[in-house]
Amino acid sequence: MNFKEEFEKKVENIERIIRDYLPEETGYQKTVLEAMNYSVLAGGKRLRPMLMGETFCLFDGKNEKEIEPFMAAIEMIHTYSLVHDDLPAMDDDEYRRGRKTTHVVFGEAIGILAGDGLLNFAYETACKAYQYSFNDENLDTLDDQMLLERLKHSNRIMKAMNVLAKKPGVYGMLGGQVIDVQATGHAIERDRLDVIYEWKTGALIEASMMIGAILAGASDLEVEVVRKIALSIGLAFQIQDDILDETSTMQVLGKPIHSDEKNEKTTYVTLFGLDKAKEFVEELSNQAIEQYQSLNKKNEYLEKLIYYLIDREK
Amino acid sequence: MNFKEEFEKKVENIERIIRDYLPEETGYQKTVLEAMNYSVLAGGKRLRPMLMGETFCLFDGKNEKEIEPFMAAIEMIHTYSLVHDDLPAMDDDEYRRGRKTTHVVFGEAIGILAGDGLLNFAYETACKAYQYSFNDENLDTLDDQMLLERLKHSNRIMKAMNVLAKKPGVYGMLGGQVIDVQATGHAIERDRLDVIYEWKTGALIEASMMIGAILAGASDLEVEVVRKIALSIGLAFQIQDDILDETSTMQVLGKPIHSDEKNEKTTYVTLFGLDKAKEFVEELSNQAIEQYQSLNKKNEYLEKLIYYLIDREK
Repeated sequence: MNFKEEFEKKVENIERIIRDYLPEETGYQKTVLEAMNYSVLAGGKRLRPMLMGETFCLFDGKNEKEIEPFMAAIEMIHTYSLVHDDLPAMDDDEYRRGRKTTHVVFGEAIGILAGDGLLNFAYETACKAYQYSFNDENLDTLDDQMLLERLKHSNRIMKAMNVLAKKPGVYGMLGGQVIDVQATGHAIERDRLDVIYEWKTGALIEASMMIGAILAGASDLEVEVVRKIALSIGLAFQIQDDILDETSTMQVLGKPIHSDEKNEKTTYVTLFGLDKAKEFVEELSNQAIEQYQSLNKKNEYLEKLIYYLIDREK
Repeated sequence: MNFKEEFEKKVENIERIIRDYLPEETGYQKTVLEAMNYSVLAGGKRLRPMLMGETFCLFDGKNEKEIEPFMAAIEMIHTYSLVHDDLPAMDDDEYRRGRKTTHVVFGEAIGILAGDGLLNFAYETACKAYQYSFNDENLDTLDDQMLLERLKHSNRIMKAMNVLAKKPGVYGMLGGQVIDVQATGHAIERDRLDVIYEWKTGALIEASMMIGAILAGASDLEVEVVRKIALSIGLAFQIQDDILDETSTMQVLGKPIHSDEKNEKTTYVTLFGLDKAKEFVEELSNQAIEQYQSLNKKNEYLEKLIYYLIDREK
């Protein structure tokens, strides 16, 4: 099975997981549930849940019931940020991935509420990873081996929950969006651009891979290495985005090109030019691979995925 | 000290707690942090954290470090819902509590992002209630009494986190907002109105009191009774709102009256008339008090607070 086939199979499996955790479209509030599902099921590469799942495997994670709710949750958070980004008051985009954006289909009010609903539902979903009955009454009957087992489980979940709450927030993705919104229209210097990239794109990829490692029981040291790998991938991924916006076509990307130019956005391409931008991508991918190798763990698919993310055409 | 003085003192203390957990206004993303703090610090009765704290005391909760992050978090969630409710695409309100609304002061984009930031930051803040080092390495050295202690702590936090994630969401407050938005402008039947009230107003009050009980170590049975008390309070509170909109004056209320009529909203007053609406409030308050008494616990201030919430003039 070549990488493309393997990739498609993984995406299929993730689509199944995401559907399992999306809300049923029933009840008086049906419309917002439809809008949430419409935006999450708009397709996409599912990179964040994929990186989470593959990092989980890298550290020999076994328990699907622990990782799957977080895989669905991170995609809900990613989707909420896109839904709100597309709003008229933000980027005012009418199309994404070749489909009408959520607020265009459901109206602006439901667009806002669907984004809110997805962010909120992500945490509701992540809570499902905590499997032990919340009933404490039988706790006294457990021997210390079982107590230890449970405590390690709840520590993993709390650690993962903490990352899921921090990285998308004001010191992560959302903070990056704010700086990005305010930077649009005037030139900014490199260090501010780096913060935007590290936070707006990097933070959620960090969260994905860190949570995969945490739930698999990786040590704090290993989680920190994973965070660095994710950050390199995130930056390379974002700079590749800048390059594609310059060199690709709407057909291939499924969204308008030259949007950065249109929106007067500073990017690695506008700051350093195409060739230098490509060098940065090269450099960052090598960093990611070196850091990965320093872990002395093996997940061949994850390696191929990292290369794919960076050399991708769309 | 009479109730009003006691009430003021409690509010003061809650203001202190909320400030402790709000973000510092520094960094490239400063603006959104200012907008978040501006909207949270707009004042208000702080009823949700108050009900949470008083229910915590009702069950002899001791550990402030467990309850305070959740008290701050529930107010952040309440505030996020107001910030997004006020947006032009929603109710389009320019003033709240005599101050300009967040999007009017900071612009629509930051208004949306500040609401998102508050919802997200609420979960980030609640995670701070989990006090044990996430470092598992020393766990093996703990005797089973300590293990049990820690496990009960993390179970309480996970339970509370679960309520904090569910009640504001699509099967709670947000779901209620959606139904409300769609109902505005045409008459609806009672059961739909009840769902709006139970969810839009009731759910967050349920969450507040349930979390107070859970973190104090109340049994599942007791938490369920608390939930019923909260629901009765929430409904009575909302129906009282309908009545005041009809019978009060702008001076007393501090906001325009007859707004339901203006917005063609179905309310308990439009459905049943004033007298019947007052009977419902009476009924629900008696229910709340009976349920409270069935707990055989005592918190005199909480009792007075319940009466105050229901017989209030504004």
